[in-house]
Amino acid sequence: MKYQYLTNTPLDKAVQEYITVLENSGMKCKEQQIPVAEACGKITSEAVYAKICAPHYNACAMDGIVLSASQTFGATETSPVTLAKGDFLPVDTGDPLPNGCDCVVMIEDVVESDDDSVVLHSAAVPWQHVRQIGEDICAGDMILPSYTQVTPAAMGAMLAGGVMKLNVVKPPVVGIIPTGDEIVLPCENPNEGDIIEFNSTIFSGILGNWGAIPKTYPIVKDKKDLIINALQKATSECDAVILNAGSSAGREDFSCIAIETVGKVLYHGIAIKPGKPAILGYAGSVPVLGVPGYPVSGIIVLEQIFKPIIARLCMHDLNSEEKVTATVGRQMTSPLKYREFVRTRVGMSENGELTAVPLSRGAGVVTSFVKADGIIDVPQDCEGYEAGQKVTVNLLRSKKELMNTITIIGSHDPLIDETTDILRLSYKDCFVASSHVGSMGGIMAVKRCEAQLGGIHLLDEQTGEYNISYIKKYFPNGGVALVEGVKRIQGIMVQKGNPKKIKTFEDMAREGLSYVNRQRGSGTRILFDYLCNQKGIEKSRIYGYEREEFTHTGVAAQIASKTADAGLGIYSAAKIYELDFIPVCDEEYDFLVSKQAIESENMQKFLQVLAGDELKHRLEKLGGYSTKNAGKIKKEF
Amino acid sequence: MKYQYLTNTPLDKAVQEYITVLENSGMKCKEQQIPVAEACGKITSEAVYAKICAPHYNACAMDGIVLSASQTFGATETSPVTLAKGDFLPVDTGDPLPNGCDCVVMIEDVVESDDDSVVLHSAAVPWQHVRQIGEDICAGDMILPSYTQVTPAAMGAMLAGGVMKLNVVKPPVVGIIPTGDEIVLPCENPNEGDIIEFNSTIFSGILGNWGAIPKTYPIVKDKKDLIINALQKATSECDAVILNAGSSAGREDFSCIAIETVGKVLYHGIAIKPGKPAILGYAGSVPVLGVPGYPVSGIIVLEQIFKPIIARLCMHDLNSEEKVTATVGRQMTSPLKYREFVRTRVGMSENGELTAVPLSRGAGVVTSFVKADGIIDVPQDCEGYEAGQKVTVNLLRSKKELMNTITIIGSHDPLIDETTDILRLSYKDCFVASSHVGSMGGIMAVKRCEAQLGGIHLLDEQTGEYNISYIKKYFPNGGVALVEGVKRIQGIMVQKGNPKKIKTFEDMAREGLSYVNRQRGSGTRILFDYLCNQKGIEKSRIYGYEREEFTHTGVAAQIASKTADAGLGIYSAAKIYELDFIPVCDEEYDFLVSKQAIESENMQKFLQVLAGDELKHRLEKLGGYSTKNAGKIKKEF
Repeated sequence: MKYQYLTNTPLDKAVQEYITVLENSGMKCKEQQIPVAEACGKITSEAVYAKICAPHYNACAMDGIVLSASQTFGATETSPVTLAKGDFLPVDTGDPLPNGCDCVVMIEDVVESDDDSVVLHSAAVPWQHVRQIGEDICAGDMILPSYTQVTPAAMGAMLAGGVMKLNVVKPPVVGIIPTGDEIVLPCENPNEGDIIEFNSTIFSGILGNWGAIPKTYPIVKDKKDLIINALQKATSECDAVILNAGSSAGREDFSCIAIETVGKVLYHGIAIKPGKPAILGYAGSVPVLGVPGYPVSGIIVLEQIFKPIIARLCMHDLNSEEKVTATVGRQMTSPLKYREFVRTRVGMSENGELTAVPLSRGAGVVTSFVKADGIIDVPQDCEGYEAGQKVTVNLLRSKKELMNTITIIGSHDPLIDETTDILRLSYKDCFVASSHVGSMGGIMAVKRCEAQLGGIHLLDEQTGEYNISYIKKYFPNGGVALVEGVKRIQGIMVQKGNPKKIKTFEDMAREGLSYVNRQRGSGTRILFDYLCNQKGIEKSRIYGYEREEFTHTGVAAQIASKTADAGLGIYSAAKIYELDFIPVCDEEYDFLVSKQAIESENMQKFLQVLAGDELKHRLEKLGGYSTKNAGKIKKEF
Repeated sequence: MKYQYLTNTPLDKAVQEYITVLENSGMKCKEQQIPVAEACGKITSEAVYAKICAPHYNACAMDGIVLSASQTFGATETSPVTLAKGDFLPVDTGDPLPNGCDCVVMIEDVVESDDDSVVLHSAAVPWQHVRQIGEDICAGDMILPSYTQVTPAAMGAMLAGGVMKLNVVKPPVVGIIPTGDEIVLPCENPNEGDIIEFNSTIFSGILGNWGAIPKTYPIVKDKKDLIINALQKATSECDAVILNAGSSAGREDFSCIAIETVGKVLYHGIAIKPGKPAILGYAGSVPVLGVPGYPVSGIIVLEQIFKPIIARLCMHDLNSEEKVTATVGRQMTSPLKYREFVRTRVGMSENGELTAVPLSRGAGVVTSFVKADGIIDVPQDCEGYEAGQKVTVNLLRSKKELMNTITIIGSHDPLIDETTDILRLSYKDCFVASSHVGSMGGIMAVKRCEAQLGGIHLLDEQTGEYNISYIKKYFPNGGVALVEGVKRIQGIMVQKGNPKKIKTFEDMAREGLSYVNRQRGSGTRILFDYLCNQKGIEKSRIYGYEREEFTHTGVAAQIASKTADAGLGIYSAAKIYELDFIPVCDEEYDFLVSKQAIESENMQKFLQVLAGDELKHRLEKLGGYSTKNAGKIKKEF
């Protein structure tokens, strides 16, 4: 084989070469003729010239009379000129200027006599009140040059200039071939072992946003010949092709062989993370991109490698997202060998300063892309950043939206999502970004000014009191307030019907029973440890104590799937998964708020929603909450 | 009638009241259910929750063997654990985790024996190499809150979470009713007196960009009953309606009466310019906007009054254009009574500073919207600005594009448009903005740093030399260069067949002949005056000397329409209009360039195109040019 196998080629070099090779192979945009009315947003493929003038005739611009200005020369207030009937004509605005006339006298300046003659008390200037032919556009003028995006106003100018059709760049058709033995079309009830094929949908959305037309082919099994056949068909029907998954170097990764069979591979393996196993290939003049199977890798490969190619085929600059500089909120390490693209939350202070808090890096975690506000671009040869360093971020949301976003970091409760939803329903310009890192994470995030709000439920093992002692400890100088959230029931979630007959907390240490825990730093973990100490249970006796989930629903999902017998969590999570629930205690889930943020308009909206009836109503439906003083300030520090 | 007739209501007050009244009348967005695959860019109308977990089963994350971690407890390098066949199972990545197993040992860590048993040299940790159920999304989790735009990644997350359909905001259908006795559908050969109806196309483009669905009704004649019927039909079929033209207070302006008949008028007359006669009405919960007929007025009224309404119906923030501060290039006056929106060119210097040069204010001139880079927002109670003052501009183009734009101000020649077109065809990231204000205007624009280039052809009446003496006079300290453009033939354009038998320049003063001139400051005007002086012709004897056109094609268009017999201009313009042409002299059309700009990458591209074969070829086709040293620096100052 001629291609370099799993190289580690720098991104920019690879993309530059790819474009050059493709252009030398004859890749270029296609054109099509369309009616002007359908051209909005399209890119002209050749210059558009006016065919007629606009206006296309000399038009009277006032109601009045038309005549030749020479008839009025010498007319003044004291020596008016009288014109007999027949020496002038009455006209309305928009009427064509009759032959032999070169001006309009406004009706207000005309004195009419009984004998149908008129008297004028001032001389007319030639071409006064005439909208002359070609005033706006002259036939032959260039209305739009080539490769220019058509705006609504340009559509008007073309029609005014007698242009009914124009040539525009034809949107490229991009084929997407999903491959794999286990992948299935999206459905509500997949079987165990099935992998839902949603990459094609994500890629279609991205391609559509770029102005291309996605064409998804049926799923192809992991058989070399089938993949080659599918690729042959797609490269003959499309302007570019994405071959999804099978791009690694494993036993059943046939993408590279298939592309080599149908065309050529320029590079296999690019020094980016995620996305390393990308294949840059082509068949004739058709680019063929081998894309890794993990959705996040796929998105990055499309953005970084395919976007400039599609931009050539669309003849349109697709790099519209804003590059900004932000301060990174925490240390992040990055491999020297790769240019890394790290999804990140971006927060904006009221003076416009940006902070970036990196999200989970797992390449399969598509929700992190849903939550991401931007992508940190970590250069190759960079080992990462210390907290406080400046980083480059490609924004995925507008600055305006970031400016109007309340950032909530801390313990998770469905209450946050419901509050967010009610806020969205009530206020157009108020957004919420929430991350679930546990109560202690929330305290630290508010302390580092990464969040305006932190959801916390931290039990003081000494006093049995919630939250207050922690705030006193971590904010010795104050500057924060505690806003009352909800009281909620924590309890032991067990499988439906309680097959293991669990009755009390002490059962957690029983032989043959498996537990699923929450992560360190979460309020529920602290509560569990407190209860263990109180009841004198040794943690080492609890099977599964080390198994950590990050949310209540995560714990409930494990129990529902029967890989665990019990876990501590809130009632609403148990209810969603139809689990049995053994109440253990009521706890106080509150919000830590920075005092600087509390007066802001958006925060006031948030607190109103927290105190409102709609949230009460929704939490009643979820079950296990009491909401008496929600939204009230409990204590200032 | 109850409405206030042609009031002068401040814009913000009127819009705020309009929204309030409409919301109180029941205006709200509609919703529809669509498949996830069609949801890209749509706005959720309710929160979307995951129906299944993703992954939806506990999946092996490595090729290897599965077992219960407890089977391996105590295994070390020195005391390995041996598992007999049947105590473990081989698995591939993606396989479901079998019942009773809680971890995967990678194949690399497994030592296989001949008797099908395996030996492990370290203890496994429970849940190692298992992608646990719900790791990405848990059933019941909120994937998207209400009124949130669906991204490609969110589509993936929904499908992964078992969501196949979702409720989104239904795009509002906006009816457009064009009215008027003279208006006709766009065509290539309109009759005199016909007005081409292109407003509906412009409005449709704008509405489409906002995410609404435009629905244009047939043209309605200026009859009250017909307009009322059309309005009744449209308000029953659409979510909002635009009634175009007839919004003034004239005799045949029935819009107000029609809206009062079908519904109510809130305001007629808003303190904006252009756009004052706008009517803010509604029928039931359907907003009905009366829009003035001049296209520029119409665009401003849509942008300023209708956009916030459509934003409510789309539940989407449509205010995406950037507001910037720029220095205004020349004095501009503005009426105190109105908030004025002035189309402007925006130039960007290399350090990112912006200058705004206002364009023509004629409300009918749609090309000024095609050329506009932004809109200067002049507050009510502001008399205007002096050159050098800071103004607020809503950008219509991206800063990136502005940064890569060469600004050419000066005399017009088709050569500029052709050069622009070749540049667009050759370089994706290089744009040209040109304004035609005559040669003297070009000199002043380069002097004021509003333009990097000025097209000039200025004859020194003393020496008969072109351009150089003018540059010496206006740039005594140098800092500019003169780049050679073309030699072109100036001559007298006359009607086809030369019916007036014009032979020499002296004929211009002949009795009964009408001339059409160019504007003051244009090189052609200066040439004409020079020729008059040379030949001893008194200008007062030339009929039409005061009639001014701004371009060569403008002059040609007047002659072709037979409202003038002759005009001085270039050969290529005469050729487009099939006019006869009497050559008078060759002149030098060159480019004045600021030295600061000449080294820039874009200017070098421009000069290359100027010197290139493609331009030569195009100018040959236009006719009347010689291009020997085009693009060479003629002289530095």
